[in-house]
Amino acid sequence: MAGEFDLISRYFEYKQSQRDDVIQSVGDDCAIVQVPAGYQVAISTDTSVAGTHFLEDADPKLVAYKALASNLSDLAAMGAKPAWVSLALTLPKRPLEEQEVWLDGFCQGLFQLADAHQLQLIGGDTTQGPLSISFTIQGLLPNGQGLFRHDAKPGDNIYVSGDLGRSGAGLSIILGKLKTHHLPETDFLVKSHFLSTPRVLLGQGLLDKASAAIDISDGLISDLGHILKRSKLCAKIDVDALPIADEVKAFMPTQVDAQKLALTSGEEYELCFTAPSHKHDDIMQLSHQLDCPIQCIGQCFSPKNQDLMIELYSQQKKLDWQLHGFDHFKESHG
Amino acid sequence: MAGEFDLISRYFEYKQSQRDDVIQSVGDDCAIVQVPAGYQVAISTDTSVAGTHFLEDADPKLVAYKALASNLSDLAAMGAKPAWVSLALTLPKRPLEEQEVWLDGFCQGLFQLADAHQLQLIGGDTTQGPLSISFTIQGLLPNGQGLFRHDAKPGDNIYVSGDLGRSGAGLSIILGKLKTHHLPETDFLVKSHFLSTPRVLLGQGLLDKASAAIDISDGLISDLGHILKRSKLCAKIDVDALPIADEVKAFMPTQVDAQKLALTSGEEYELCFTAPSHKHDDIMQLSHQLDCPIQCIGQCFSPKNQDLMIELYSQQKKLDWQLHGFDHFKESHG
Repeated sequence: MAGEFDLISRYFEYKQSQRDDVIQSVGDDCAIVQVPAGYQVAISTDTSVAGTHFLEDADPKLVAYKALASNLSDLAAMGAKPAWVSLALTLPKRPLEEQEVWLDGFCQGLFQLADAHQLQLIGGDTTQGPLSISFTIQGLLPNGQGLFRHDAKPGDNIYVSGDLGRSGAGLSIILGKLKTHHLPETDFLVKSHFLSTPRVLLGQGLLDKASAAIDISDGLISDLGHILKRSKLCAKIDVDALPIADEVKAFMPTQVDAQKLALTSGEEYELCFTAPSHKHDDIMQLSHQLDCPIQCIGQCFSPKNQDLMIELYSQQKKLDWQLHGFDHFKESHG
Repeated sequence: MAGEFDLISRYFEYKQSQRDDVIQSVGDDCAIVQVPAGYQVAISTDTSVAGTHFLEDADPKLVAYKALASNLSDLAAMGAKPAWVSLALTLPKRPLEEQEVWLDGFCQGLFQLADAHQLQLIGGDTTQGPLSISFTIQGLLPNGQGLFRHDAKPGDNIYVSGDLGRSGAGLSIILGKLKTHHLPETDFLVKSHFLSTPRVLLGQGLLDKASAAIDISDGLISDLGHILKRSKLCAKIDVDALPIADEVKAFMPTQVDAQKLALTSGEEYELCFTAPSHKHDDIMQLSHQLDCPIQCIGQCFSPKNQDLMIELYSQQKKLDWQLHGFDHFKESHG
């Protein structure tokens, strides 16, 4: 196996076009960047561990894409514009050829997505150990702006971008949890699990429209719960309004199963956000501009007592579904 | 075991005094920071993996200290002032009580060192998997300044801060590589392996004095080699001038063994830097001000051909020692 420095320099240097605001990239003790006047920096860290977030033998290109997409999604949920990323990569001992094939695939997935967002890899650390990928991503936010979790207000609409359930259905197929014939949509759903679209432009477009936002990494119920908890609110959700892809509907045994999946499916990386009703038309216009579907699925309201809850409705009838959000600690792939 | 969110919020929130430049800390999709006018941001990532960088059962307080110290040392080597840090922590499944004891110790080591440097933990990610710690640290540098590896010049003196060999000797004791009686200095050396002093103030003080700098994480020969390679220079080192602690001298069989250890011992986190000779008095004054020993150990010179090399001397005689730098990929603890 090549030494640490060889690996880093061979695969991670000189791959990207340089951003003007990067003074020093890979190759010294630190990277150095220049933040433009009038901007703050949004920072997020996300780790993907083999056996917990992906299977050890998963395609390295897809693994890189998914790991970076989840970080980009955090910037999107804050409304920040991607700028720089650092990578902490831990690689198991492997025969040199195998290592190179893996790194080659990994770098393809990484740089393809990074380039699409003008995101520059500015440094990192490569170590030996159990396979693990941790990105720390940084984005730019105009001073004083940002989409937080704590600013939702009573009466605000609740929205979801894209559709829900594809990542969760794909994961079930990968793990063999749903015993199913090889339906036509199987491949599409497995691919969807890895290839979500971080809603980067949507997040930036929502800066002057949404009152609160989060990305759906742990499941809609769980992530919306974070907004409600921080904003001290309750919510009503119309499960019939949940956006669900046709492939998920076809794949799940019943419509109710599809709706429950849409409420709990993790790693969707769609945005869930709230906005006052007078912003509705602006939001629909943004949806049209970005060609990004946005669906209103419910409303926030003030809690009557201390209980912060999410009430689910179908055709005006309250449901008593028991649901649990996606949790990596429980839903381990290992 | 408590869920991901419980763990994070219980151990990593509300522990530190807030820096004025942190707009949003732990608790949303991203942290947000404000870089003061006239400054650039230096960023470094460093990962410590159980079995590679420390033993699985090592004291979590020491593990946290050492992991963060190595990141602070990267800022020091760039001359940057510590500001913010993100933590990617991967924890194995453990009984709840054991997990809490570990996290408690880890947070003690982490916050003790962070507080000492006005470094604020602004976020991170806690995941389940093989024990691993990755910090991404950020510091502030006055615009246009910074200690790089590529600016050493022919004739520049080569300096080392503190002393060398303690961390390496401590590691040998931990790994049982050196069969030795329990000498009085054993405990001191083991502790030294974990409790290095990142030379943060020295780095900042060298901004207008040193021509190049690096921190000694892979061994003096190896790290000085990076400066020479990037600056296209050779170096003469007087091994008799190497600063070596009395405990290391007492511990190693011969003086030559101690000198070889000083040349190759990794994870020392002292600074190795170069400076023109007219800066010598300023550097000695800085050493005095900071109560930080600094020793001139050699000089840079222009290569006669393409070979970039380090020549070792003792009492004006050239040595033909064969040495290898410390490399985590080879010197695995596992």
